[in-house]
Amino acid sequence: MTAKALGGVFTPVVTPFLSDLAPDPHRFLRHCKWLLASGCAGLAVFGTNSEANSMSADERMVLVEQLVQGGVPVGRLMPGTGTCALSETVRLTRHAVALGCAGVLMLPPFYYKGVSDEGLYRSFAEVIERVGDDRLRVYLYHIPPVAQVGISLELVERLLSRYPGTVAGIKDSSGDWNNTRALIDAFAKSGFGVFSGSETFLLQTMRAGGVGCITATGNVNPAAIDSLYRGWQSADAERMQADTTATRAVFHEFPMMAALKATIAHFARDPGWATVRPPLVELSAGENNALLAELNSRGFAMPGVGA
Amino acid sequence: MTAKALGGVFTPVVTPFLSDLAPDPHRFLRHCKWLLASGCAGLAVFGTNSEANSMSADERMVLVEQLVQGGVPVGRLMPGTGTCALSETVRLTRHAVALGCAGVLMLPPFYYKGVSDEGLYRSFAEVIERVGDDRLRVYLYHIPPVAQVGISLELVERLLSRYPGTVAGIKDSSGDWNNTRALIDAFAKSGFGVFSGSETFLLQTMRAGGVGCITATGNVNPAAIDSLYRGWQSADAERMQADTTATRAVFHEFPMMAALKATIAHFARDPGWATVRPPLVELSAGENNALLAELNSRGFAMPGVGA
Repeated sequence: MTAKALGGVFTPVVTPFLSDLAPDPHRFLRHCKWLLASGCAGLAVFGTNSEANSMSADERMVLVEQLVQGGVPVGRLMPGTGTCALSETVRLTRHAVALGCAGVLMLPPFYYKGVSDEGLYRSFAEVIERVGDDRLRVYLYHIPPVAQVGISLELVERLLSRYPGTVAGIKDSSGDWNNTRALIDAFAKSGFGVFSGSETFLLQTMRAGGVGCITATGNVNPAAIDSLYRGWQSADAERMQADTTATRAVFHEFPMMAALKATIAHFARDPGWATVRPPLVELSAGENNALLAELNSRGFAMPGVGA
Repeated sequence: MTAKALGGVFTPVVTPFLSDLAPDPHRFLRHCKWLLASGCAGLAVFGTNSEANSMSADERMVLVEQLVQGGVPVGRLMPGTGTCALSETVRLTRHAVALGCAGVLMLPPFYYKGVSDEGLYRSFAEVIERVGDDRLRVYLYHIPPVAQVGISLELVERLLSRYPGTVAGIKDSSGDWNNTRALIDAFAKSGFGVFSGSETFLLQTMRAGGVGCITATGNVNPAAIDSLYRGWQSADAERMQADTTATRAVFHEFPMMAALKATIAHFARDPGWATVRPPLVELSAGENNALLAELNSRGFAMPGVGA
């Protein structure tokens, strides 16, 4: 792994499935290359919006290997490796480090609810110790609306003081700007990279001293979000923020993952992209039409996608 | 799998771990045999209280094979096979059916929250279709306090009408007696087996037409709970219910899984039993003493455990 601190716009890449629901490595590779060509600094493959938790560890490891074989630079990969099971998280993390990935995005174990910070500390510490590799860079993944199990400031502090350098940053998908700001205020000075969990807070995050965002809508709107990232100190920043926020709001009117895939399916002229794995359900025809009508009314496009 | 309907007291067997946190097949086999000798009708290995979700699919498959090799009758096994990932759930369920297990206890995919009944229907249906074996008996696992994703009556009805015989029953760990009663009222007549999620509701469940309970405290108090099950129509039933409920209440004062393991460790004179996997944490010395003092004051014992 590179010692270079990561920053910019990262996307939790949506995972395409074939009609039999098997992961589709060809569409996946093509989309990853499009994202990198369109402004994404990196790819947080196997995030929440990737339906990663609907896939087995084996399916995930094969997919990331196929990306690397297909020419995606490992230095731009931050695969999600956190699962409920200690042994599985260790296995996925070791695999990512061995491939040379820039970092890993690590959910806490999320089945048991109401667990203590002590228990979560032990979870992360066990994984770090068992992987036992100086190249490991862990980005903690705080997403209480979905995982229900969150990562407190106290837990970050304890992990950071025990594993400085290895515990490299966090994705804050709490949706609570006060939490993101508190993380930046407490830890950014030491080089800890705070990513906001969506572009909604990107300008605030950059102004406060964060390093970027890891955002689902990066799958469809990477260039505009990257322009905001690169231009956060420009006179145009507020307008760019408002514009990307408004585009994101369209997707929030629909089930997010199905909507992202429907959008790619439309602009890539590739209906197969719309397939999701249960328990998710694809958009209805009515939802699909409503989504596309709203996007068209905004002049939204995905130049070059699917090519 | 047997076509015989299952009933009685089932236990989600706690999983012992070695000091390096690897599953311990020897203590596991010994405890399973003790449970069967002490009144349990069957073993719901890899339930919530088994820390099943803290283990990989491979670890679970190896453990259940070791039980069978060690002489545990497959007709008394109901392994938990539901995970977040469709492919993993199919793999675990196929494995259980191939071994000849009496049934499987199936969580819904639980990472994504707020999913639709349509999506959950597709999840269960995909698993059943992919396993594609007439011997499969699915016991749905409704535990909204932990999984957050629940199983509605409408979903049960839809699954049952599409897969009669295969969808064989449910464990209701909602803690809501009205829900358990509604399940029994709606589906028990067709042979659908409703297990309450703890012995607290065992007498009510049997009187209403359910088939038993699947209960964590079966790990430590199987004989008394089985006596209640077998004696539910006796004059002594209310007293037996009150007594088992009171014993259970002791465990609810502490983190349940750690308390169960601490109790086994004490009565089996085997301190290693107390080990839990992160994110769980073992009882503190103070908690351990308080638990044992309360159990002793009740005259609680586990005759023959650990022998």
